[in-house]
Amino acid sequence: MTKLLDTMEQPGDLKKLSLNELENLASEVRELLIHTVAKTGGHLAPNLGVVELTIAIHKVFDSPRDKIIWDVGHQAYVHKLLTGRRAQFETLRQLGGLSGFPKRSESEHDVFGTGHSSTSISSALGMALARDLLGAKYHVVAVIGDGSLTGGQAYEALNHAGHMGSNLTVILNDNEMSIAKNVGAMSQYLARMRTAPTYSRVKHDIEYLLRRIPAIGDSVAKTAERVKDSLKYLLVPGVIFEELGFTYIGPIDGHNIASLVDVLQQAKNVRGPVLIHVLTQKGKGYRPAECNADKFHGVGPFCVETGEIIKNGVNPTYTAVFGDALVELAEKDDRIIAITAAMPEGTGLKKFAARFPARFFDVGIAEPHAVTMAAGMATQGLRPVVAIYSTFLQRAYDQIVHDVCLQNLPVVFALDRAGIVGEDGPTHHGVFDLSFLRHIPNMVIMAPKDENELRHMLHTALKLNCPVAIRYPRGNGVGVSLDKVFSLLEVGKAEIVQQGGKLTFLALGAMVGPCLEAAAILEKRGIKAGVVNARFAKPFDAALIRALARDPGMLVTVEDNVLTGGFGSAVLEYINSQNLQWVKLLRLGLPDTFVEHGSRQELLAKHGLDGAGIAAAVQNFINEYGVR
Amino acid sequence: MTKLLDTMEQPGDLKKLSLNELENLASEVRELLIHTVAKTGGHLAPNLGVVELTIAIHKVFDSPRDKIIWDVGHQAYVHKLLTGRRAQFETLRQLGGLSGFPKRSESEHDVFGTGHSSTSISSALGMALARDLLGAKYHVVAVIGDGSLTGGQAYEALNHAGHMGSNLTVILNDNEMSIAKNVGAMSQYLARMRTAPTYSRVKHDIEYLLRRIPAIGDSVAKTAERVKDSLKYLLVPGVIFEELGFTYIGPIDGHNIASLVDVLQQAKNVRGPVLIHVLTQKGKGYRPAECNADKFHGVGPFCVETGEIIKNGVNPTYTAVFGDALVELAEKDDRIIAITAAMPEGTGLKKFAARFPARFFDVGIAEPHAVTMAAGMATQGLRPVVAIYSTFLQRAYDQIVHDVCLQNLPVVFALDRAGIVGEDGPTHHGVFDLSFLRHIPNMVIMAPKDENELRHMLHTALKLNCPVAIRYPRGNGVGVSLDKVFSLLEVGKAEIVQQGGKLTFLALGAMVGPCLEAAAILEKRGIKAGVVNARFAKPFDAALIRALARDPGMLVTVEDNVLTGGFGSAVLEYINSQNLQWVKLLRLGLPDTFVEHGSRQELLAKHGLDGAGIAAAVQNFINEYGVR
Repeated sequence: MTKLLDTMEQPGDLKKLSLNELENLASEVRELLIHTVAKTGGHLAPNLGVVELTIAIHKVFDSPRDKIIWDVGHQAYVHKLLTGRRAQFETLRQLGGLSGFPKRSESEHDVFGTGHSSTSISSALGMALARDLLGAKYHVVAVIGDGSLTGGQAYEALNHAGHMGSNLTVILNDNEMSIAKNVGAMSQYLARMRTAPTYSRVKHDIEYLLRRIPAIGDSVAKTAERVKDSLKYLLVPGVIFEELGFTYIGPIDGHNIASLVDVLQQAKNVRGPVLIHVLTQKGKGYRPAECNADKFHGVGPFCVETGEIIKNGVNPTYTAVFGDALVELAEKDDRIIAITAAMPEGTGLKKFAARFPARFFDVGIAEPHAVTMAAGMATQGLRPVVAIYSTFLQRAYDQIVHDVCLQNLPVVFALDRAGIVGEDGPTHHGVFDLSFLRHIPNMVIMAPKDENELRHMLHTALKLNCPVAIRYPRGNGVGVSLDKVFSLLEVGKAEIVQQGGKLTFLALGAMVGPCLEAAAILEKRGIKAGVVNARFAKPFDAALIRALARDPGMLVTVEDNVLTGGFGSAVLEYINSQNLQWVKLLRLGLPDTFVEHGSRQELLAKHGLDGAGIAAAVQNFINEYGVR
Repeated sequence: MTKLLDTMEQPGDLKKLSLNELENLASEVRELLIHTVAKTGGHLAPNLGVVELTIAIHKVFDSPRDKIIWDVGHQAYVHKLLTGRRAQFETLRQLGGLSGFPKRSESEHDVFGTGHSSTSISSALGMALARDLLGAKYHVVAVIGDGSLTGGQAYEALNHAGHMGSNLTVILNDNEMSIAKNVGAMSQYLARMRTAPTYSRVKHDIEYLLRRIPAIGDSVAKTAERVKDSLKYLLVPGVIFEELGFTYIGPIDGHNIASLVDVLQQAKNVRGPVLIHVLTQKGKGYRPAECNADKFHGVGPFCVETGEIIKNGVNPTYTAVFGDALVELAEKDDRIIAITAAMPEGTGLKKFAARFPARFFDVGIAEPHAVTMAAGMATQGLRPVVAIYSTFLQRAYDQIVHDVCLQNLPVVFALDRAGIVGEDGPTHHGVFDLSFLRHIPNMVIMAPKDENELRHMLHTALKLNCPVAIRYPRGNGVGVSLDKVFSLLEVGKAEIVQQGGKLTFLALGAMVGPCLEAAAILEKRGIKAGVVNARFAKPFDAALIRALARDPGMLVTVEDNVLTGGFGSAVLEYINSQNLQWVKLLRLGLPDTFVEHGSRQELLAKHGLDGAGIAAAVQNFINEYGVR
């Protein structure tokens, strides 16, 4: 099946292949990608789009001597296959297996870890400047999608790189997509270059006219000469990149290995920064992914023949419940606005976008802009809901502090994928949000115990007159029925799910379920435990803590966030500030290390956050210290 | 002195003035700015640069109906003077007085609070989109400097605004400066428009040539027509902005009220987003500020006649000591690199830049890029020091998590202006850094008790093989002598400054001094207190905490950071995780609210973080709970 690929142990091996063989290699890679991702799940469409490009890069450059950096990094599977990781490829995204993203500790060919968008030109420039200072000689190549180019950091880096003038190759992988269809004026600009070759036509036209000007007098000749000089400067395509100090080459066909190799060779010899504009098709070579690149961007296991996704669980996802609830609420309140940073599908906003196109805004991969724009809207009386994955909201921390919380504006943050997300690993886990949001004044933070509560929380958030974040996990809900009528939750009030004895679980969001399991396990051992659904991480239910303190026993906080500065710390800080030091408090959550990739369930178990793990931790604590 | 200005109670009042009167008003404003800021300190040069522009804006637009947003906001003094705040102007930047930045709670004319750079187009677009949705009719104007345009968020917003096509006026206040001389390819691009009118010359030249082409045959005529059409598109100045969907107008003289008024009127009638390129001079009209706009950007009290800054204290600043130490260390280690985000002076890197120009990088107002670029450099064996004020580092939170800490790269963050900065207020206080850095795995956080210790910490940080942040306060050091020889501090080891009894202060960084004062006050009352200089917020001295726990008394943590998730919480989390609940711990720090503006000393006192306040808090605690 993959005869040629199996012989590729080093990227250098590929240099010996003929053009014909390289094309066969591309077919083998494509087949393997489709069949592997069909089993493991992963980022199929982006990788199918860069098969030829990756082969051409490794044909022309010498990794790891030359540094190749993959922006976002979900398109680095082909790179992994060509750099000695063919044998482990079936372990992709599984616990202990290959990461779905470039990872420095995995291979010397992964020179920079990525996961979030728009960082590649910055890190590549850092390497290029280091090379120049250290007197080394190698090439630095950043591969960045047109989607990633909507992120401001990419522009910051282009602006700086153009100014510095160091040798640097930026490959713009233009597939007209972020994850969804790309947006923004820059995207339209790129489209003009793809479709209407205005620039080269005008250049041709002017040259044609100049040839027709009779040589009458010096002044005309001089002017003509001056115009020719200026034209070189003005009438090139990619004028924006040229103005920013880059040599622009393109656009070129990203599925033609021969021309890719030519152009990359050419770029190697250009002095200063070069931008190569490569046109690719997301999902190339697999019909279902070509037709539906959005769906096959990041995908679960699927059937290769039909392209049908293998359903994972029957309950609706939190994402879908959020999306539906927002539409229902927006029907009754036309001040409600939905904002996404390039992820209408992932955040569940597609229905909203279809129902209320004028009230839906996809700003591109531009989380800082999304948050500040929402704040601007809130000043005018709108009720924006900013739906951004927990991990990506890290990009907008300062904007949340300054533009939203300092001004106490009613912006609702819908943080999907909070907690452990699973196979995407450390760059995608949403395990810091409680810690980076909790210390910001004016912020209210909620987490629903199930998908039905998410509905009520969204309704409640939209009635509050302050910033609110709602964090909820990736994947299927717990399968409860959904109330038709929305109810208003009391801010800072927890819900007692199960009465207990001297031991009480104070569980946040998705941890309520595992705590109920833990309580059942403990009960079999004769330990009766109550379970409280905290609902609010800030302000949390201080009255409840005080009440529990009057009847002192053991309190166990459970969260799928790092323990440092998280929800348990909030409770602990309160206990300390009230001098309630006689409450025995056990805080369960994630340790002060980055969590690897693997399935969500495996990782929760590994970190003691499933029912069994929680019960065991409590049992250990009781064995060691007893419960008063 | 300010006869005309004194009659300006509403911005509307200004509309009745003649051009001549407006020019006199400008002179009055300028005089008042110089004389007030000479007393209060503040952002003089930026405001002197926008006197005419602000007058023209209020002449043409109707605030607060029309929304005027000042990017960064340090240039909004003139706006304040013209919108009913003349009488309070002498309270500028003082406790309880006018803020040095736009502030929604201060005036209905301050429609959006600013303080950090590059947010204005985002918030303005949010307002413009809200206006369109709500069917309202008003103008939205964002005033943004060319410096702020180096920040990626500005580009994210331009890209989105150009795509949306809503009516929106962006005024590019081009003074060729960030705080220092502006950098980046975009800046060079703007300079080309200012100095060499290539574009209009080429356009003129081509038209001249076209007129000289004899009309021979249809094909030439057609081609000529087509070229003319294309030229409209290609040969306008501001092609980058035009390509991004904006109508570009300019460049125009920003000190000529008449032409400013003309152009603003014209912009009002353009459909879709407009960018007006205005040329101004920072410090205009005050010779010392014109000659040294960097120094007069943000300035303390000064002598109006000579322009001499009134020295504030005699000890060298932490900033200066940091800058000198870095030069000394870099003499011996040529892997050391210094990076600033547009603040070479403020961060103390001017000497480094002069001594090691090739190893110094000013990336513009682009903190995310600065951090990722440093990570890239670190992968190649360099030792980058990223010097960014605590508050501005908030911009790069995600890059610190992913690019530096996840990859465990040795990047040193020098966080000047940590803690309370004083007169610049809530947008500039560095009171969140411990909370937003502490929960990131692999991060080491230090804070020196004095300027001498800062030297040793910098030396130590550069020897460690992991990410390190050093936070130190604004202003003068405590006046200790500086050791010539650098010593290596033991990571995670505190320093016992003063032995005590049952009460121990565990003070972080700048709080060591006030704790010594508090200990002295308490001693007079018969309470003996030890003082420990924590040195490390992460990892902190756990062994010391355990030792103190063996001899249980009272432990008081003191930090100039919010209490939520801060240093005291770290100690508390440890005590809890080790089940050392019998240690009485009092945590002193800042509350869960935004801290207003005022002098650093006033604000520390107000929040109980001076010697007297700390002593009082401890006394209260003892009175209430006793010390075991």
